[in-house]
Amino acid sequence: MKHLSIATLCGSLRKRSYNAMALQAAVRLAPSHMRFETIAYDYVPIYNQDVQEFSFPEGVLRVAQALRRCDGLIIASPEYNYSIAGPLKNLMDWVSRLPDRPFKEVPVALISAASGAFGGPRAQYDTRRVLAAMDALVLLKPEVYINMCNTKFDEQGTLIDPQTVRFLTDQLYAFDRWIARVALNE
Amino acid sequence: MKHLSIATLCGSLRKRSYNAMALQAAVRLAPSHMRFETIAYDYVPIYNQDVQEFSFPEGVLRVAQALRRCDGLIIASPEYNYSIAGPLKNLMDWVSRLPDRPFKEVPVALISAASGAFGGPRAQYDTRRVLAAMDALVLLKPEVYINMCNTKFDEQGTLIDPQTVRFLTDQLYAFDRWIARVALNE
Amino acid sequence: MKHLSIATLCGSLRKRSYNAMALQAAVRLAPSHMRFETIAYDYVPIYNQDVQEFSFPEGVLRVAQALRRCDGLIIASPEYNYSIAGPLKNLMDWVSRLPDRPFKEVPVALISAASGAFGGPRAQYDTRRVLAAMDALVLLKPEVYINMCNTKFDEQGTLIDPQTVRFLTDQLYAFDRWIARVALNE
Amino acid sequence: MKHLSIATLCGSLRKRSYNAMALQAAVRLAPSHMRFETIAYDYVPIYNQDVQEFSFPEGVLRVAQALRRCDGLIIASPEYNYSIAGPLKNLMDWVSRLPDRPFKEVPVALISAASGAFGGPRAQYDTRRVLAAMDALVLLKPEVYINMCNTKFDEQGTLIDPQTVRFLTDQLYAFDRWIARVALNE
Repeated sequence: MKHLSIATLCGSLRKRSYNAMALQAAVRLAPSHMRFETIAYDYVPIYNQDVQEFSFPEGVLRVAQALRRCDGLIIASPEYNYSIAGPLKNLMDWVSRLPDRPFKEVPVALISAASGAFGGPRAQYDTRRVLAAMDALVLLKPEVYINMCNTKFDEQGTLIDPQTVRFLTDQLYAFDRWIARVALNE
Repeated sequence: MKHLSIATLCGSLRKRSYNAMALQAAVRLAPSHMRFETIAYDYVPIYNQDVQEFSFPEGVLRVAQALRRCDGLIIASPEYNYSIAGPLKNLMDWVSRLPDRPFKEVPVALISAASGAFGGPRAQYDTRRVLAAMDALVLLKPEVYINMCNTKFDEQGTLIDPQTVRFLTDQLYAFDRWIARVALNE
Repeated sequence: MKHLSIATLCGSLRKRSYNAMALQAAVRLAPSHMRFETIAYDYVPIYNQDVQEFSFPEGVLRVAQALRRCDGLIIASPEYNYSIAGPLKNLMDWVSRLPDRPFKEVPVALISAASGAFGGPRAQYDTRRVLAAMDALVLLKPEVYINMCNTKFDEQGTLIDPQTVRFLTDQLYAFDRWIARVALNE
Repeated sequence: MKHLSIATLCGSLRKRSYNAMALQAAVRLAPSHMRFETIAYDYVPIYNQDVQEFSFPEGVLRVAQALRRCDGLIIASPEYNYSIAGPLKNLMDWVSRLPDRPFKEVPVALISAASGAFGGPRAQYDTRRVLAAMDALVLLKPEVYINMCNTKFDEQGTLIDPQTVRFLTDQLYAFDRWIARVALNE
């Protein structure tokens, strides 16, 4: 079976991020023909059009390269203040300014882990709209929300909540079918 | 008449920002008892909880100080990718982590200037939700959208569109009444 | 102490609606100077501008009357398909067409009960935007979501979940202060 | 070339609806292998679960039949109070309760005509979320907003604005490709 190259992007930059742990769980639970690459963007500055017109930061260009070569993207992100995490939105804004619009036509699956009761729906619906603006192709269902996330991973950062494991596994297989469905047969 | 101290925050960091020009127009058109202070945040880094736990960046603390001492806040911002500008969201996320929640109870008026046909409504509605999360008190009407903004300012950056001048003036006087209405009489 | 006249509106029309039960709980838990009136709208038809131009349905006029004489409004509603319940939106659309805009300046508190894991946030945020369009003054916090609502009321329809009782009580007292705060002193 | 059966649904029920006119324009501008069927729902009552449990209204069952036999759906709707038109939301809520979920897997294109400056974006983004809840497959781009709609049709209801004709034509051809792309090859 043909390999699928899947990029992962984490909306939280802290070391012990629950969303990074969720992405590690995804790597473990995914269909075996998926190969994963983590997109790092710690060194991307705040978006400023004057900087852009001088030149795109190296970190933005690296993220764009990773998007161009992937077959699909998984974004895991916390929700901040009822919407998209600022660092993730800032990154998407930078990348969207590149002439070839690197998010365009990329199949995307969304995960959110948050410590509150909901697990991030407000952030996910805003992210869907932003990704639609950039012509990405977001998987509709199943949606994965990891609420009260501090109770669902062990000390080593392993996802141990059986229901979340099931939701996430279902999403990964649905994402596999979605990628096949929307792939352009050129 | 008692002076009102109004802070202004611009979602775009570039030098010749139309939103910065809109804020300059607001300063000119505002009721005479309003005194203005521009909030700068060029040096605020990308939000990272690990950095926060080490210490809040100086730039974030300065923004928080300005919010604490103002009687009201005007935010003018572009819309990026159908939602809040990343730099503005990143700043709000930083400030929201301070224990006293500096946006709390602050009356806020929103303006958006954008080059497209709409002028930023998707960004404004998301910003309303984010400000509600932080317990700010957002003026409902009139809403000010400056669409096709490149046609509405002259070479010197002066707002010259008469209809926009009228909308903005109406908003500023409504904001003045809103501040009086929601002020806590302690 | 001056009485406050509070109207209640339920987004679900079925007899054993959890949202109607939540409103009954609100009546029981409210500050003693609040007097309640239930707004019925079973007989309001689907909105049609041709019908409107002929004449407003009797049921719409009765709802408008109730809104005009109240000091505040509590809306309890389920979430249908990730947004506002159709019957509630249809009613609001009818009422909004009356020349004096009866929702204008009405303080509103929102409750949602739903059987799912979230309890209705997507509906509540859309309802906030719709109420802002109509110039109603929505209480920001505390937000009340009654998720997995079938587990939180007893056979007689009494709210028995202690945490929800506490949230709802807090909301009612905050609503009382909000009404006082935004009341126009004419 | 195989015919495509396209159902059309109008969010406004009045006789001289601009959205109905926009749908007529779509019929005229569409690729020649598209065959159109108008979905009528004037007689659908307000949603009530007690009624549903007794039996689904005849009008709802007819809408569901039309959805089941179409290859794609075009919805044209006004925006009411910054969100989805109540009649359209009420209809979607009814249909979503049928066990086979008739919107599921249906490719959908969205149009909105409104007399204001925007032309309906707030309604369209909410409709996207609602359609995602029901597992419909919404075309992302081009988005079609017919703002100040009273200026864009002639006395006979014919779309005469050249730019809107172009946007709508582009959308119809993109919709044709989208239907082919997401069709399940069983």
